Amino acid sequence: MTLEDALNWRYATKRMTGAKVPEEKVERILEAARLAPSSFGLQPYTLLVAEPLELRRRIAPVAMNQPQITECSHLIIFAAWSPVTEAQVEEMVDLIARERDLPRDALAGLENTVKGKMAGFASEEEGFQWAARQAYIGLGMALAAAAMERVDASPMEGFDPPGLDQLLGLREQGLRSVALMGLGYRDTDNDRQAGQKKVRRPREALARRL
Amino acid sequence: MTLEDALNWRYATKRMTGAKVPEEKVERILEAARLAPSSFGLQPYTLLVAEPLELRRRIAPVAMNQPQITECSHLIIFAAWSPVTEAQVEEMVDLIARERDLPRDALAGLENTVKGKMAGFASEEEGFQWAARQAYIGLGMALAAAAMERVDASPMEGFDPPGLDQLLGLREQGLRSVALMGLGYRDTDNDRQAGQKKVRRPREALARRL
Repeated sequence: MTLEDALNWRYATKRMTGAKVPEEKVERILEAARLAPSSFGLQPYTLLVAEPLELRRRIAPVAMNQPQITECSHLIIFAAWSPVTEAQVEEMVDLIARERDLPRDALAGLENTVKGKMAGFASEEEGFQWAARQAYIGLGMALAAAAMERVDASPMEGFDPPGLDQLLGLREQGLRSVALMGLGYRDTDNDRQAGQKKVRRPREALARRL
Repeated sequence: MTLEDALNWRYATKRMTGAKVPEEKVERILEAARLAPSSFGLQPYTLLVAEPLELRRRIAPVAMNQPQITECSHLIIFAAWSPVTEAQVEEMVDLIARERDLPRDALAGLENTVKGKMAGFASEEEGFQWAARQAYIGLGMALAAAAMERVDASPMEGFDPPGLDQLLGLREQGLRSVALMGLGYRDTDNDRQAGQKKVRRPREALARRL
């Protein structure tokens, strides 16, 4: 199956059957997010995987009680780092040095550049917006991977981020939730969206040649 | 080839050969962005495809003269709508009505919801950040598609968005550039990044089970 076929097959699934997605598929979807590029390679976000139904039941009220929160198999919370700390930058540089077998000093330029970028944000909010965008690249890749696995996915912004952050104690961990992705299987009998024609802006409207 | 293989093959290509990417591959990469989901399905961004070398030469100075600007085959500019206008929301609703053969009235609820969301942003900046994130889902999908096509891609934030917006007259069109993606072919002789081990945060650090 081509990626294009997969993307035409997928849709934002609002009702799911509750059937479990096999762990190896979940792992491959998470792996796509892990392989996603990010500015400086920092990957300034964390994915929180909520599988237990009891936990998802507690999350539902801060997510407009959308049925897919409890009907999905795994709920993935994309949480941006806020703020990005110097320790996190150093951890990235340490990791590169280790993985590429480079002396730590050879990466001093990179370290200074990234620390400078983080310190240069006009506000914590500006840094957060930057980190959130990186998370959305990962979200795009994870959605593509889910479609390739023929796993349905429901990307969601319709939730109360401060409420979810409080429920899960995310701020204390330097995290702010930015998007949710439910993974599961479409309930075609009850999902009004199932089988509806996919609507997208025409190609010439979306992409213009200069 | 699996998506995972493709994502392991790709890297942020800094030096390219200048060889042309066939149009049908460019079209499939743009199609992946077009099929990307977005909040409410609004797709609040436009892709500008800069192919002529002369144009890319003029863009280079506002993009830190990065060599891949002129060495790539096609430079795709992701530009978020700012602000999102009521006319743009109405255009989306018209499109859905047409594509799904629905009476326009049946979509009044959706129209009001989306207009309410757009009007509810605390500032134009907040709306812009929201639109930019949607563009980044498309960026993620386009990068995945490029890798599947074995086309190299260089996602870039290292440019001067106001400078680029001015050069191309984007603000007058209600657009603000947020990211660039060069498409082309890696120059393995000159790209220091070519062949380097891909470094990513370990899976258990990126994705935590709750």
